[in-house]
Amino acid sequence: VTSIDINCDAGESFGRWKLGDDDRLLAHVTSVNVACGFHAGDPATMRATVAAAHARGVSIGAHPGLPDLAGFGRREMAVPPEEIYEMVLYQVGALWGIARSQRARLSHVKPHGALYNMAARDRQAARAIAGAVHDLSPELILVGLSGSELIAEGARAGLRTLSEVFADRSYEKDGSLTSRSEPGATIEDPDRAAERAVSMALKGHVASRDGSRVAVRAETICVHGDGPRAAEIAAAVSRRLREAGVVVAAPSPR
Amino acid sequence: VTSIDINCDAGESFGRWKLGDDDRLLAHVTSVNVACGFHAGDPATMRATVAAAHARGVSIGAHPGLPDLAGFGRREMAVPPEEIYEMVLYQVGALWGIARSQRARLSHVKPHGALYNMAARDRQAARAIAGAVHDLSPELILVGLSGSELIAEGARAGLRTLSEVFADRSYEKDGSLTSRSEPGATIEDPDRAAERAVSMALKGHVASRDGSRVAVRAETICVHGDGPRAAEIAAAVSRRLREAGVVVAAPSPR
Amino acid sequence: VTSIDINCDAGESFGRWKLGDDDRLLAHVTSVNVACGFHAGDPATMRATVAAAHARGVSIGAHPGLPDLAGFGRREMAVPPEEIYEMVLYQVGALWGIARSQRARLSHVKPHGALYNMAARDRQAARAIAGAVHDLSPELILVGLSGSELIAEGARAGLRTLSEVFADRSYEKDGSLTSRSEPGATIEDPDRAAERAVSMALKGHVASRDGSRVAVRAETICVHGDGPRAAEIAAAVSRRLREAGVVVAAPSPR
Amino acid sequence: VTSIDINCDAGESFGRWKLGDDDRLLAHVTSVNVACGFHAGDPATMRATVAAAHARGVSIGAHPGLPDLAGFGRREMAVPPEEIYEMVLYQVGALWGIARSQRARLSHVKPHGALYNMAARDRQAARAIAGAVHDLSPELILVGLSGSELIAEGARAGLRTLSEVFADRSYEKDGSLTSRSEPGATIEDPDRAAERAVSMALKGHVASRDGSRVAVRAETICVHGDGPRAAEIAAAVSRRLREAGVVVAAPSPR
Repeated sequence: VTSIDINCDAGESFGRWKLGDDDRLLAHVTSVNVACGFHAGDPATMRATVAAAHARGVSIGAHPGLPDLAGFGRREMAVPPEEIYEMVLYQVGALWGIARSQRARLSHVKPHGALYNMAARDRQAARAIAGAVHDLSPELILVGLSGSELIAEGARAGLRTLSEVFADRSYEKDGSLTSRSEPGATIEDPDRAAERAVSMALKGHVASRDGSRVAVRAETICVHGDGPRAAEIAAAVSRRLREAGVVVAAPSPR
Repeated sequence: VTSIDINCDAGESFGRWKLGDDDRLLAHVTSVNVACGFHAGDPATMRATVAAAHARGVSIGAHPGLPDLAGFGRREMAVPPEEIYEMVLYQVGALWGIARSQRARLSHVKPHGALYNMAARDRQAARAIAGAVHDLSPELILVGLSGSELIAEGARAGLRTLSEVFADRSYEKDGSLTSRSEPGATIEDPDRAAERAVSMALKGHVASRDGSRVAVRAETICVHGDGPRAAEIAAAVSRRLREAGVVVAAPSPR
Repeated sequence: VTSIDINCDAGESFGRWKLGDDDRLLAHVTSVNVACGFHAGDPATMRATVAAAHARGVSIGAHPGLPDLAGFGRREMAVPPEEIYEMVLYQVGALWGIARSQRARLSHVKPHGALYNMAARDRQAARAIAGAVHDLSPELILVGLSGSELIAEGARAGLRTLSEVFADRSYEKDGSLTSRSEPGATIEDPDRAAERAVSMALKGHVASRDGSRVAVRAETICVHGDGPRAAEIAAAVSRRLREAGVVVAAPSPR
Repeated sequence: VTSIDINCDAGESFGRWKLGDDDRLLAHVTSVNVACGFHAGDPATMRATVAAAHARGVSIGAHPGLPDLAGFGRREMAVPPEEIYEMVLYQVGALWGIARSQRARLSHVKPHGALYNMAARDRQAARAIAGAVHDLSPELILVGLSGSELIAEGARAGLRTLSEVFADRSYEKDGSLTSRSEPGATIEDPDRAAERAVSMALKGHVASRDGSRVAVRAETICVHGDGPRAAEIAAAVSRRLREAGVVVAAPSPR
């Protein structure tokens, strides 16, 4: 039986500014990636997000990003690997402090935005992140783009990895995600997103923007939390996967 | 035999800006309080500071502050207790992440600047800090001003506390520190600072600015790291205490 | 004939985070106060806000705040008057740069949140703000709470001032605003807000929370932009004032 | 008679952190570039820097940077041209506010660090900066690397430009500056820096790192403020240029 995790980013509010409908999304996912304060999230938001996920039995992971609130961590920055290593330690540690006070456990780490993209293709960045996660705890699971340098470096560091696919993003034929600046980069229709999720989970491939077949390894499916129909998409993906006989669950802790 | 700890703040650089001569100071203290990024410190500085302290066998503690880089955490802010609780969890957790990667242990928490002052006199703030430290780990030691609300709330929360005195700061007759905006607030002469340290450690009192006797409980002595003669003061305090028969050491972990 | 200005805060988004429905509000006000980056607003938001106001012929003012994004400038901070003076120069100047590129004019300055409250009761803070506005340009109008120190210091500095009242906030009997932490601090019903606005504009008084009569000088009426019914309130206030024969207009430039 | 300007960056302190010996440097330069708060500088530092320069009759310019305090604006960030345009308006405006309160005039704009480098080779970034400066005031002079896109775009926008050379930095044979991560990137010896300055000013060329001759247009010479011998270098450059018959002066305002 095929098993798959559904994850979403959460805790992306900051102070007075609210973003995403975390409560509705949490009903449909099995893992959340919690923003850690560098690109979004503040201690109060982190605490509330961890509490909500913990109460629902959803797996909790850290979602470290670049230090760029104004750009929401989506602008690449020329940060050397050493500092990437350090900023991952810092952010995962901060979330650990929040989780610890609630006796909640961190299960995984998934870099955010530009850091995720840098780690997908740049081996030094990928190695820095994998090293930080390993040095924090070899029990933590590293989540990265299917086929990316991050997955390769995670495996090399001896970490358990989770290859990620996207139900609501378009792919290029080389397996990379279509840039958000291109038309059609995001998929807004819940049915279409769900159909793609099932294809990726059961067949191991998905249609790229130009119609060619892209092979993917689908161990966790991301649904974005900040689109207008995010909760609907998550619900449709979850339902259709279950209907197709897939077990929807976070990886069990070792 | 009387035993006392000597502590200093460290890791107060930020990016391109360097502050304090941590290397020289570390030779003379038994504990350091490491800035955690809200008022000073960045992940790289925190990592280097932990490494230097760990290499010397100096006890490592977190020095959480208010979120105010521009004001170095020295401006009081109307932050509700709940958010104080959360920002302490966040900052101590972040330092834990850095320390964990080096297999170094955190021994204590001491709030910084305006947060320290708020916790000295405001019971709600004190309780929030003590609660956060306790919820992170009941093994952590809470450091606060001798006679303060923070020490009282730490004890009430079941934490081990360490009452702090200042060798290089002037006292008012009510036991509070003379405000930095007053003349004579800081003591620059190493001999005079050392003499006051010995008086506080052995006799339990010190002369206030107006000459009256202030009773203090001296379990740890702070020497500031950012004055021009910081290392000299630390060296003099340490030497004079040892000459007077005092054991200079961090509290041993339980 | 009585004439009154209706103002609202605008441009309170920040990066990925959107706040307020500026477009709808702009249709009903005669002046806007544009956030300048310290508590909210970023250069792109400021530019778009100025452009929208300029296109509609709405008077544009600066809304400088405390340097506290996480707290939205609503937490009081112990900032000395000298630094308040400097941060007002900086923020008004920044907005001037944005406006200048569009050949738009700045008409007024109104401090935001905690800075507004500090300036209402603390003469030193009020004097610092009035001094900064005057040193930027004696043509700028200073907006402050009716009866406040800020209005007094603005007049003393030789500035034109505009006494502000609030249609959607409850008053205490001493003329101060009911704290947001109290029940009933904000008035959500458009009709009730409009009725209060008319009373303040034509009769010069309003009912306080305990029913006593509070005298106010109403030269500009604030409607908040971040409540759920903000645009409705603004529309109702504007309509009812006009129906009552009041001229709703920004003060004309000298 | 050849005439040349000597410029240095100034006002690069931030809050508690001091950087550079502005007072000593100001005695030897004819223009200063004042940090505007995004990569360094705060309102108080900006005000003091403007006052010191104004008192000495040194020309005052804005030194806008990327929004990256932790990286001192030296890390390239993927910021779109539109946002570069806006952040230049904001920062120059902010300094204008500070200067205006002292009745000091802004003469020029020079981007800082990574923004300077991006503007040297990326036409879109260069055009955004030139456009912002022009839209603020066509009287402002735009300073950029000799031979750069920024100089070209400044001229295209109708701005007066000033081509910059570096006395204390090594050049590559293509006219770019040797990266700071390479050995020998900075020149610490005052005599050697002065000699290079004279060659650039009078002969229009300088020796690259590999000994080849690099043609430069030297209208302003930069001496860095943050090296250990910064003031000595500035003094030597200024003295040797005068001895060689060069007029050392800022460009006169039109």
